[in-house]
Amino acid sequence: MDTSTVILQIAAILIIARIFGEIAVRFSAPAVIGELIAGVILGPTLFNIIQPDGMIRILAEIGIILLLFQIGLETNIQNLAASGRKSVIVAIGGFIIPFVACYALSYYWFGLSQLVSLLIAGTMTATSIGITMRSLKDIGQEQSKEGQIVLGAAVLDDIFGVLLLAVLFDFSQNGEVNLVSTARILLFMTVFFLIAPTIAKFLSLLIRKHERVTKLPGLVPTTIVSLVLFLAWLSHAIGIPELLGGFATGLALSRRFFIPFGMSLKADSEFSDKIHNQMKPIIQLFTPIFFVTVGLSLDLSSIDWTSTFFWYFSISLTAVAIVSKMGGAMLIKENFARRVVTGMAMVPRGEVGLIFAELGRSTGLLNNEIYATVVIVIAYTTLFTPFWLKLFYKRFGKYMDD
Amino acid sequence: MDTSTVILQIAAILIIARIFGEIAVRFSAPAVIGELIAGVILGPTLFNIIQPDGMIRILAEIGIILLLFQIGLETNIQNLAASGRKSVIVAIGGFIIPFVACYALSYYWFGLSQLVSLLIAGTMTATSIGITMRSLKDIGQEQSKEGQIVLGAAVLDDIFGVLLLAVLFDFSQNGEVNLVSTARILLFMTVFFLIAPTIAKFLSLLIRKHERVTKLPGLVPTTIVSLVLFLAWLSHAIGIPELLGGFATGLALSRRFFIPFGMSLKADSEFSDKIHNQMKPIIQLFTPIFFVTVGLSLDLSSIDWTSTFFWYFSISLTAVAIVSKMGGAMLIKENFARRVVTGMAMVPRGEVGLIFAELGRSTGLLNNEIYATVVIVIAYTTLFTPFWLKLFYKRFGKYMDD
Repeated sequence: MDTSTVILQIAAILIIARIFGEIAVRFSAPAVIGELIAGVILGPTLFNIIQPDGMIRILAEIGIILLLFQIGLETNIQNLAASGRKSVIVAIGGFIIPFVACYALSYYWFGLSQLVSLLIAGTMTATSIGITMRSLKDIGQEQSKEGQIVLGAAVLDDIFGVLLLAVLFDFSQNGEVNLVSTARILLFMTVFFLIAPTIAKFLSLLIRKHERVTKLPGLVPTTIVSLVLFLAWLSHAIGIPELLGGFATGLALSRRFFIPFGMSLKADSEFSDKIHNQMKPIIQLFTPIFFVTVGLSLDLSSIDWTSTFFWYFSISLTAVAIVSKMGGAMLIKENFARRVVTGMAMVPRGEVGLIFAELGRSTGLLNNEIYATVVIVIAYTTLFTPFWLKLFYKRFGKYMDD
Repeated sequence: MDTSTVILQIAAILIIARIFGEIAVRFSAPAVIGELIAGVILGPTLFNIIQPDGMIRILAEIGIILLLFQIGLETNIQNLAASGRKSVIVAIGGFIIPFVACYALSYYWFGLSQLVSLLIAGTMTATSIGITMRSLKDIGQEQSKEGQIVLGAAVLDDIFGVLLLAVLFDFSQNGEVNLVSTARILLFMTVFFLIAPTIAKFLSLLIRKHERVTKLPGLVPTTIVSLVLFLAWLSHAIGIPELLGGFATGLALSRRFFIPFGMSLKADSEFSDKIHNQMKPIIQLFTPIFFVTVGLSLDLSSIDWTSTFFWYFSISLTAVAIVSKMGGAMLIKENFARRVVTGMAMVPRGEVGLIFAELGRSTGLLNNEIYATVVIVIAYTTLFTPFWLKLFYKRFGKYMDD
């Protein structure tokens, strides 16, 4: 595509995301909803001005990697570890319950085939770490107790999602599950999460050391972005979503992170501030492109709104998808309001759900009608959850004090 | 191309540009030379790891647009206007003299055809505004008296270049020059340079106004980048290089700029500072990608280093290209040292020269041998001028005090 067209598209995405973000805020909704709707409007659903492909998709990917980097950077690893057990429960519960419930609905109630039902169930296990954390960020709750539980759970959910996707892909291709390859992915992931932050920390110390002597401006933006993108690439090469590479890097560069053999290398809070301040505008620039692209990908144009099956299936699947996802969060020991918020935050399926749905469509397993249903469920959970979440905090936030 | 490959390429470009930039600084050379050499090494000349196309080219284009935006932003328009007459002389002299001299060399001395000679002459009229301004920036001279003369001259040279390119293209296609279309381009340009800064100023006032009330973070990075890219696109649509749109926007947002009907709207220096500070990391991130891409585009791999003609022609063309370009600067009334520096700064042909050369190759007018010669002359003027410039300042900078 022509360079100048892409440049115009980027300009358009940035300004329209901003305008709709501002409108959302004006209506007391989180800004992310505005950005998603901007995407829906610009995309194939309505005006079809911009397609979510090529350059735009790459910039969007960089956007979500950088956002997860920022979330990692701002995470207090002690808090994250403290909520670890609860995160595991929320992640496992929020994975198994929707899977079983949505499978049962598709297979037993709607009489779909086993493989199609498995794929729908898989799609509904997803949690969009991007939408979830951004929604919490928009209302300033990403560092709260429930925010940390959700963050941990969403990261784990992404890992489960990768495993499930691999299993379902095997199953759809060969009719059986290859346990060896699944175990290998799991092993790679464990190794990655042990090693990646250490690499990132080590390289960041090199950068910091160099920062004291360099006379050439622009060290932080170029080297830190390079580091984040390198680890994102590395995680992808191992089979983990790129954004988790960004998260691992952020975690490694956060103030409280230390590596076992480098305990004497105290966190340098001046350098941390520099990273924060200089990365912020870059992250703010790229992030909206991601959320607009999620909106662009929610192609609602192919939906046959007159189909009874579509309405019947999509409404029931939406209900089951939401209730079952919240069920996972009900298993932890917290006050009721916090359990509800935790569950709600896990509801958006976002771009992760779309990856599953896309697998179903590209392999021909999901026909147009079922694909459309799945997309509308993803769209509903993605577009409305941030709003409900904000509303819930406003009305019931006081019950979470303890 | 695969998203994750592009992400790795970006990471590689950023870090290698940085490393070579640091090495250049260590050897007392301007950092831009390191970035250009990083490109030569990564590109088809040596390792052929990265091609200057697709996504990388777009990011590079954004990089040079943003750099010109920054240069515009930091320009004091009164100073630029004050050096206006001298800039015009340097631009016209530095356009006509190389054109005539290089044409004469190619046509009369080397007996090349008229059209080929015209194209070579056209290539040698180019001035790389990017390399030129970056070299001055690297040695902290972009705001000096000669820096302002060079900036004005380089902008004018870019405009002349567009006109000449249009004329040569017409001539190579139809054997004649279409004066009407040339006049139309000239008219468009004049209108653009009158209107674009006014549009940019007006929109920036809207952004500033909004900035006071918004609760959504990230206003400056998204809206200012959007504005810059929009005006870059607009300038391209009119037929002007995109980077001049970036420059016009920067100029409009600079502290000293005012629009006739908005004289009461005083420059808001707090908002100016915000733009400066928040745009800086973004500009620092994108700029090296541009210079690496120029290096990538300097494909020296096809050169037959054993050809006598190649050596004979390239050495004489380099000499003529440098001397004739400096001739333009000799016409102004300044002390000798300043005239030399002004002339030297205009020498790099960079990416602008490559556009001409590419036109010649793609239309089949320049055969491989002549194309290679032109590329090596561009490479020499681009890679070595920043070094000579820095050296000259160090040795003779004192003679420029007045």
